[in-house]
Formats: sequence, C-alpha cells, structure tokens
Amino acid sequence: MWWENKIMRTVRVRNAQKPGIIGNLLKAIGDAGGFVGEITTVRFLTDHVDRDIVLFAKNETQMESLLEIARNVPGVVLLEVRDEVLEMHQGGKIAIRSRYKIETLRDLRRVYTPGVASVCLKIKEDHALARRFTAIKHLVAIVTDGSAILGLGDIGPLAGMPVMEGKASLMETFVGLSGMPILLDTKDTQQIIDTVTHIAPTFGAIQLEDISAPRCFEIEDELIRRLDIPVMHDDQHGTGVVVMATLINASKMAGKDLNQSQIGQIGLGAAGLSISKMLMHHTGKPVLGADLSEDAVNRLKKAGGIPSTLKEIMQKADIVIATTGVPGLIKKEMIRPGQIILALSNPVPEIDPKEARAAGAAFAADGTAVNNILGFPGILRGAVDANIPRITTEMYAAAAETIAGLAPKGALVPSPLNRKVHHKVAQAVAKVALDSGLARADLTDYFED
Amino acid sequence: MWWENKIMRTVRVRNAQKPGIIGNLLKAIGDAGGFVGEITTVRFLTDHVDRDIVLFAKNETQMESLLEIARNVPGVVLLEVRDEVLEMHQGGKIAIRSRYKIETLRDLRRVYTPGVASVCLKIKEDHALARRFTAIKHLVAIVTDGSAILGLGDIGPLAGMPVMEGKASLMETFVGLSGMPILLDTKDTQQIIDTVTHIAPTFGAIQLEDISAPRCFEIEDELIRRLDIPVMHDDQHGTGVVVMATLINASKMAGKDLNQSQIGQIGLGAAGLSISKMLMHHTGKPVLGADLSEDAVNRLKKAGGIPSTLKEIMQKADIVIATTGVPGLIKKEMIRPGQIILALSNPVPEIDPKEARAAGAAFAADGTAVNNILGFPGILRGAVDANIPRITTEMYAAAAETIAGLAPKGALVPSPLNRKVHHKVAQAVAKVALDSGLARADLTDYFED
Repeated sequence: MWWENKIMRTVRVRNAQKPGIIGNLLKAIGDAGGFVGEITTVRFLTDHVDRDIVLFAKNETQMESLLEIARNVPGVVLLEVRDEVLEMHQGGKIAIRSRYKIETLRDLRRVYTPGVASVCLKIKEDHALARRFTAIKHLVAIVTDGSAILGLGDIGPLAGMPVMEGKASLMETFVGLSGMPILLDTKDTQQIIDTVTHIAPTFGAIQLEDISAPRCFEIEDELIRRLDIPVMHDDQHGTGVVVMATLINASKMAGKDLNQSQIGQIGLGAAGLSISKMLMHHTGKPVLGADLSEDAVNRLKKAGGIPSTLKEIMQKADIVIATTGVPGLIKKEMIRPGQIILALSNPVPEIDPKEARAAGAAFAADGTAVNNILGFPGILRGAVDANIPRITTEMYAAAAETIAGLAPKGALVPSPLNRKVHHKVAQAVAKVALDSGLARADLTDYFED
Repeated sequence: MWWENKIMRTVRVRNAQKPGIIGNLLKAIGDAGGFVGEITTVRFLTDHVDRDIVLFAKNETQMESLLEIARNVPGVVLLEVRDEVLEMHQGGKIAIRSRYKIETLRDLRRVYTPGVASVCLKIKEDHALARRFTAIKHLVAIVTDGSAILGLGDIGPLAGMPVMEGKASLMETFVGLSGMPILLDTKDTQQIIDTVTHIAPTFGAIQLEDISAPRCFEIEDELIRRLDIPVMHDDQHGTGVVVMATLINASKMAGKDLNQSQIGQIGLGAAGLSISKMLMHHTGKPVLGADLSEDAVNRLKKAGGIPSTLKEIMQKADIVIATTGVPGLIKKEMIRPGQIILALSNPVPEIDPKEARAAGAAFAADGTAVNNILGFPGILRGAVDANIPRITTEMYAAAAETIAGLAPKGALVPSPLNRKVHHKVAQAVAKVALDSGLARADLTDYFED
C-alpha cells in the first residue's frame, strides 16, 4: 500500500535529451517497488533535462536501493537527493505571533502597560469578556501523551510533536484556530485529567490526540464532566465523523439504504465505539459489535449496541466496519456477496479491498479512504464559535452528514483542501448547538453563506 | 504619577481654525488633572482642524469629567471617543500560525501524513533531534495563576491573560520566541509544580509570571530542580536584572562606587530577594535586608545577606532599594544626604523621588524608571539558544551589566524598543553559559556580531 511508504525523498535527476530515458528511470523504480510522486521539470535544455522527482519507499533501506537503481539507468545523472520533509520540519511548523507590530512607545503602551491594565480590570469584573478581549476563544490545546501516535504506537510525546504541530498547522490553515500542542510527561489517567483541568482556563477547546484506549475514554469523559468548554478526542470522534461520512456515500454507491441495513462493528476501541454511536444515532438501529475486551463490549452495550462476534457479524451484517489493528483478520471466505466492507486498520487493513471485492463485496475500502483532516478543524471551529459546553453525538452526526453531502459526484468524500467544507462543517455543528439550546454565543449572521 | 493613569482614550476633536483653541483645550484638560499623550493631526482645512488626542486618566470617572470639560471648550467639537486599547485587544493579541502554506496534497503530505512519520521516528530514536525538527526550542510557556498581576493584585488568571499575551507579543517582537500563555485554575503550590512539570516537554523554557510571594520561591526552586530546561520567575529575576542595571548607572551618575557602597534592601519579596542576590554577586559584599516576614529575612540570610531593620538601613546604607508595596514608608527625615534611593513600589512609591532629592538624596527614582521589558526577552533567548538546564545568578548579573552598558549617555537604561539590546543580552547570557560549561548547544558564530 502507498500508505506504508512513509519515506520520501526529492531527487534531482539530469537526463540526456533522448526519448525514453525518463520512462526507463520511472519503470526501473517501479519495478523495484518504489512509488513515484510529483515530477517537476526544473530545466529543459537542448542536450539535457533536469527534473525533481519525489520518491516514496517503505524504509530507508529500500530508499537507498531505489537511489542506487536510479544511478544505474543509462543516460541518467543523479544531481542531488533532498529530504524536503525534514528540511520543512527544521525549527518546527508553528510559531506564536504577535498580531500587532510593536515599534513605538505608543504601541508598547497599548499592547502592554499601562494600557493593558484597563482590559484586565474589565475581564476581572466580567469573566465572559475574556472571550472578546483575549486569544482564549481561538486557542485550542492539542493534548497528547504520545501513547498512540499515528500508526506508530507508543513513541512518546516528544516524537509525537511533529504530528501535533501538523494538526496545529491544519487548524490555522483551514479554519483560523490557534492550535497549541501540549505534550504530557505522564500516561497516568488521573494526572492527565488533572493537568488538563488545571491549564484549561487558557483555551477555548481541548482536542485530545493520539491517547491510547481504554484510558482515552475515561480521560475524555471526565474532562467533559469537569470543563465548561468543548473537549474532543479526535481519534474517537474525528475518525468517527469521517468514517460515517464515507459510509453514507459508500452505501449510496452500493445501492444500500443505511437505515435499513444491519451494521456490524469489529473492534470497539477509540474509533470503533465512536463510529457505532454515531451510526446508531443516524439510523436509530442497534449496531452489532465485537471486541476481545469485555470492557469495550460493555461500553457498546451501554450505548445501545448488541454484543456479537466476528463470525456472527460477517454472517449477518450488510455493512462491516473493522478497526481492530489486526492485519488480515477478515478472510475472503467470510465475505458475503453484496456486503460493504470498510477495513480501516493502518498500515495493514483487515482485508485488502481488492480481495474483498473479488470475494463479492459490493463495496470495499481501507484506511486510506478515511481522512481525519476533514473532521476536526470544522467541528472545533463550530464548537468554539457557538461557545458550547460540550459537543454532542448529534453535532458529530451533523458534521458527518455535511461532509458526505459535499463529496463531488463519484467521490466518497470531498477534498480537505476545500476550505468551504470546513466552513460548512462548522456551520452544521453550530446549527445543532443553536437548535439544542447549547449555544451560548450570538450566532446571528453565522449561517448566512 | 503618570503610571497611575491606566485609563486611555483616543478623542477625535474638530477645532475651529483660530489661534489658541488647541492650547485652551489642552490646558483645560491639564488643569483638571488629565494627562495628554500623542496628538495626531487627521485633517487640516481652511475652517477647521481634526485631531486625534490621546488622554490618560486615573479612572473612568475622571475620564468622563475630562471629556465633559473638553466638550465645553469654545471652538471645540468632540467628534468621537475611541477606546483604542480595547479595540486592539479584540480577539486577543497573539495567534498560533502555520509556518507553511497548505494548499496542495503535496503540502499536506509534507506537513502532515505520511511525511511527518519519518520525522517522528527520527526523534523517537534520538530525543535531542526534537530541538531541531519541532517548535519546542522556541516555545516558552508564560505561566500564571493570576495571583499578582501587574500592580493589580490577585485578579485571577482570566483577567491576567491580556498581560500574558502582551508578554508573548513582546517575546516574538523583540527576540522571535513563541511565548504561550498558560493560565492555571489553581493557586496550590504543589498543583502548580506538578502541572508545569507535566506539560514541560512542550517547551524550551518556562517563564513564571505574576505569581505571588512566598509561593513563587518554592514553585521556582522546585521546577528548577525537576526540569532540564530554563525556568525563570520574571518578577524576581527579570525585575532584579533591570533594577541592577538601573543601579549600576545611577551610582555612576551619583559618583558612587557600587562595590564600595553599603547597600540596603527594604522588602524581601520576589523582586527584593533577587535584587539582593544579584547585587551581592556583583559587589562581593553582603546586603543589609529588612522585611516583616521572618521567612523572607531567612531567605536573604541563606543567600549571604545580613538581617537588618528599616531604621538601620536608612542610617547605614549608601544605596537604599525599597520594594515593600507600602506607599510613603520612607519619610524625608530618614534620608541621609548623598544617599541613592530607589523606591520601586507601584503604583505609589515608598517616597516620592522629588521629596527624596529635596531631603538630600544624591539620586532618587521610582518604579517608572524600571522597565521589565528590558530583561526577559533577551535572557530567555540566550538561555534557549545555549540550551542550558538552568539560569544562574552569574547569567542574570551579566544581563544586568550588558543592559547598563547599553544605556545612552545621560540615561539610566537603554530603550526596550532597541532590538540590539535584547540581542546583546542574549549573547551575554549565552557567553556565561558557555564559560561555565552549562551550554549544551553549539554556540559557534553566536557571538559574531
């Protein structure tokens, strides 16, 4: 899978100006199992062409062999190999900026003392004014203990920082929120809860990120109970929202009515449980759920689901969603013709989508079809703008339906690069907030475009 | 004092184009005790002039009466009254920004997945790489519990946020650091220590801010002990550095040798203790110190100072520094001719500098002469660049001497708006770090300009 190819290099090659050389080069790389990304022409001269070619490999060893292969293609000179990703990460991807220039004493007196004191005193008199006269409203903590970073597992908070900064970059880019990574030196559930509680006055919302199950459930539940601002564990609800959006469109494509289908969820971890909850809210029907952990099954039961087994789900369910982390768990013999199969574990899915389709599935996809980036920016923006004390399942469901509705014809979901999507998601969340009476902000004009 | 006039308004006035009108207006305001700041001419026409005039008042009531007075000056029309400070604070003064644009899938793959994974794995293998490939190195937590905000006292963390954001703005503006306010919901010493410890992996340095004594001592001491990054309580050391810089130049102006003078410190709170420590380091001689709190006196004793009394200090000391918070504590009868008096309490000093000079002081100044902004940006920049585990008294003293050395002829200290000052302070701190063996960063080229 392309997804597994996490090593990326930009190679500048000089090819002799003869037909077939670039073709030979790319074929040689492909034959060796390498993936090719963007190809940019740098210089086009009479006797040679210089191009930047992005290569992907599974690991450094494979990358080395790809480069060696490229060097040996006749007519090709390797001018340079750049690690652009690493270059980009130099010094980090985020910075905290002053919104004002401070160049004169006049500026200083406004931004700092003595001017600032009058603002402090106003907020002291009326705490609600902090939303207006400070950055708190747009500050979102992106909190992690580093225990479940991407598909990389428990690599610790420091090694997780590039991902947290990436999320912060996306937040600012897509919805203008100020995402602040918070790396925790503890994995203790109670210490995490207490620490986040103690720093919470700083923020308009808390995003929990890449914290492993089952601690993530207790941490989120207790923080929601304690705090008066939105708290969202992205690996549960962000993923849940995007999976549900994908499923809404996948079932349409497969000609299935989601509301009339039996849905089965294999794996009831962070994402699995949240997906089940949202689907039950959407369809009004219980989801069959299976997990090796009794606690996990009990959490589903509490949410209205029906405990089941892998075997039973594969036999009974029209739609099967798997989030187990077990590669190849679903054998092709288990597939019933006409089933929809979402095998979402990364980097290796429970069943290869091609194999599932060959075995008769009406539709099959893996984790690459599900892009978290579609969810959290708009959800948080809407939650913060509406000034709600918590995000409800209804709001997550509304976000999912909005994302599904914005997919271009023939696509499962829209592009996350489309700013409009995030804007519409924010509006959808705020709309539910308003209708449910949870919104504490004035939302006049919020739904105008 | 001007310092007390924290209420600021910008008034747009239309004056008839006749001689004396602006003079009458400003005189009327001055007669009523109002201070006038910047005057900007907006329009200059044949029959009238429009100007923006900045007014300062002690409180809203005085401001109202100043505006009423202005309205009644013949030939003057008040067009508009703006609260520019409040306008500037709308939405806060800081934002967290992505350092890269994310417009294409190519960008996304570099800033976020899959590219980011290779950076995570590199840091997992070698934690030291987090300084290179994340924002941690330039992230500074600005931590407060809101218990001693400016001269305003215990107004709480929310009301303190505009000050923390101001500090963050200054950090970015003067030295390019990313200052992140962290507001704590607790004033419990142990909880503050634990919370800061738990979030510390996120940051390159910790600035404690506006936390009241005596808790600030234990919190700073324990965090320095626990953490491997610089921790600095600005109200102690930032203030200490600037007072010491002021004193170095004040003693020169008064023709006194600082090293041969008996120094007395009245008030041994956060600032007082730190000032005493730095002065003892600088002069090699003990400071006489007085405080009502026995604990405070013991802290000075532990640092090598000599317990004393207000009376004894006023009789024996050549240089008297007061940081007691008690307005008018020093009576003019207590002043010995030739003494240097720094009465630093805000908003009302222990003795008015004019009165002190009239009573024979060779030099006298109050808190307005001491501007914290000169200290913390450069100190933190140097500490972070040198990658030191802690900031030493030697480093603070070097910062103070550098600031003193950069004062223009006739001035006590240089302007904080002069970027060169902060740069030189950073170099001075890094130089001591290098010489003392505490620097863990490569500082080649750091001292070149």
